[in-house]
Amino acid sequence: MKKLSRKSPSKIVLLIIDGVGGLPHPETGKTELESAKKPNLNRIARESLCGLANPISPGITPGSAPGHLAIFGYDPVKYNVGRGIIEALGIGLELKPEDIAARGNFCTINDEGIITDRRGGRIPTEKNAELCRLLNKIGVNGAEISVVPVKEHRFVLILRGENLSPELADSDPQRVGLAAKKIEALSPQAQRSAEIANEFVSQARKRLQDEWVANMVLMRGFSQRPDIPSIPDIYKLKPAAIAVYPMYRGLARLVGMEVLPTGDNITQQVESLRQHYVDYDFFFIHFKSTDSRGEDGNFEAKVQAIEELDDALPSLLNLNPDVLIITGDHSTPASLAMHSWHPVPFMLKSKWCRPDNVAEFSERACLAGGMGRFPATEIMPLAMANALKLDKFGA
Amino acid sequence: MKKLSRKSPSKIVLLIIDGVGGLPHPETGKTELESAKKPNLNRIARESLCGLANPISPGITPGSAPGHLAIFGYDPVKYNVGRGIIEALGIGLELKPEDIAARGNFCTINDEGIITDRRGGRIPTEKNAELCRLLNKIGVNGAEISVVPVKEHRFVLILRGENLSPELADSDPQRVGLAAKKIEALSPQAQRSAEIANEFVSQARKRLQDEWVANMVLMRGFSQRPDIPSIPDIYKLKPAAIAVYPMYRGLARLVGMEVLPTGDNITQQVESLRQHYVDYDFFFIHFKSTDSRGEDGNFEAKVQAIEELDDALPSLLNLNPDVLIITGDHSTPASLAMHSWHPVPFMLKSKWCRPDNVAEFSERACLAGGMGRFPATEIMPLAMANALKLDKFGA
Repeated sequence: MKKLSRKSPSKIVLLIIDGVGGLPHPETGKTELESAKKPNLNRIARESLCGLANPISPGITPGSAPGHLAIFGYDPVKYNVGRGIIEALGIGLELKPEDIAARGNFCTINDEGIITDRRGGRIPTEKNAELCRLLNKIGVNGAEISVVPVKEHRFVLILRGENLSPELADSDPQRVGLAAKKIEALSPQAQRSAEIANEFVSQARKRLQDEWVANMVLMRGFSQRPDIPSIPDIYKLKPAAIAVYPMYRGLARLVGMEVLPTGDNITQQVESLRQHYVDYDFFFIHFKSTDSRGEDGNFEAKVQAIEELDDALPSLLNLNPDVLIITGDHSTPASLAMHSWHPVPFMLKSKWCRPDNVAEFSERACLAGGMGRFPATEIMPLAMANALKLDKFGA
Repeated sequence: MKKLSRKSPSKIVLLIIDGVGGLPHPETGKTELESAKKPNLNRIARESLCGLANPISPGITPGSAPGHLAIFGYDPVKYNVGRGIIEALGIGLELKPEDIAARGNFCTINDEGIITDRRGGRIPTEKNAELCRLLNKIGVNGAEISVVPVKEHRFVLILRGENLSPELADSDPQRVGLAAKKIEALSPQAQRSAEIANEFVSQARKRLQDEWVANMVLMRGFSQRPDIPSIPDIYKLKPAAIAVYPMYRGLARLVGMEVLPTGDNITQQVESLRQHYVDYDFFFIHFKSTDSRGEDGNFEAKVQAIEELDDALPSLLNLNPDVLIITGDHSTPASLAMHSWHPVPFMLKSKWCRPDNVAEFSERACLAGGMGRFPATEIMPLAMANALKLDKFGA
């Protein structure tokens, strides 16, 4: 791709509707997409090349990071980004390649050390910041420690030092009624890093002992920044991300996108697109609430989220991007109330897209599209081709 | 494939309609294939297994060589044949494995050495031959030089010698208004070869200095014959090619086909097929003008080319080949006036093909065929299976 890609003024807009794929409602037999009033999505479908994208492979349920990385053109199995790195990037931390990042939760333990609340009462972010200042006073031999607050009970721990290894298991047992686990080294080289991480946890527990609800920390997702080629480097694009949630902003930064300022709803996101439209040639817009409502198990609310998105599309279409792609990073059926493995509706509209006979943006309709069922990693080459940004391969 | 293939008397005919895939006409919404009267192609489609073939992968636009190699069963990325080799094979040059071939253009430069015409006024082929005789007098240390005229302004340069490397960049800047580039070595081992190639160019410039239009040369596509297993070796076939254009004859030779004498239109090509039908068990017929008219951007002429081909099919069908495959090496939509990345209609007719519900040979109709969208490298195994020339795999 790097050899074939060329710079050109054409513009690509990639709209990812998080968790958009669904399953039929037991009463109506219709999925969330099939139930929603979505005249704009359907109109785009009629002018598009459609299909069903598999983020990873059939049967595999993607986390948000691999779901997005696949659409961005990366093999999601090869480039598996750790949770700690995602959190750190999400709040804009500048990491060195050797830094270890981990996601932390303030939690509540009882006198026996048993976890009673994994999210420490969802303390206010201000309280979180105060506790992080406390933890930043911790000194440990062999690593510089930095504790940075995120929202509510969430924080990021950065370990900076020589020869540290991210091959560390979580301390978070992922359920209440158990004690926090000792952090185990997953390889012999990680032994010293495990000692450092455990020493941090042990000192944190002491410093938090007078707190009522946030009196302990749980650590997970120890990881280093992966050595990932950037989108500007591979595709010669100047990409920008318009995302509300930190994690997606972090993912976008990881692959070399600039993160644009925006409001907290899709109308404001489209307005940000309009404002910065001349300055970039690739835009990733992330719409979150379809996934959130799916995870809530709220079918009707997910339908409403789709309708809210549909309402915002005319002002996006007014910009008339050379290539418009609308898809999701995975399915989140309300009936499952979690991410799922089902392939995701996809459509690509451009002057050169060779439309098919699909007349609706939904799981069943897109199956009959020109792309059939296909791996999401094919989306970026298709986007580039339709933007006439790829040279011919071979003589 | 080599282990499973077996010799049998059944006959396979592979008809490649160059650049046959297209895009909808903005007024009618129909592609070139959908617009053409093609009763024979449609009749074959009704009796065939149909699909849409991807020559390389979604979004990637193939050159003619990779487009054909994929259909012949070769991974087109692994066996990337250089332009120089293609040109040399096209005019029937016998190359040794170590020979370096490059495509040359006679071009026009002004007094400052700036290119004003990359095709040197498309000089007559006779003039070209005269200039090549001049260039054949060039002597360079370390390589034997051979300059062979092709058509108009085109020639082939062969460098023969010990330890030569084809890892050389082009001197052709691919546009006017610039000077020819110095030929750069792309690896340390190619340093001496770069010096030899530059010495040739420098002497050629001197010998051409009194010419008015063809007063310089531009070189590109330095390459060696790839070490490619032959079709007779892999499939135990005795293959023949019936192609009008040199490049396709060269490609056929590269994979071990014999090139049959033929006329310059499809009726004569089918007549050649008839004459040699008993002597071979695999025939590749290449139909060029669909691609040429597509590259001209002439929608109606491409439609006519399809109709011309359709007219020639009854005499081909009279031979009643055991397996008949009709497809293209890539799409060349008239609206784009160039090769494109869109997948290509495919059909395979045989007594054993399990027909689908497709009733028309077109992009949209073939999408619903039994093969759906699939990689073109799967065509040869399908051909062999339908000719009952493949053993069962495994116990």
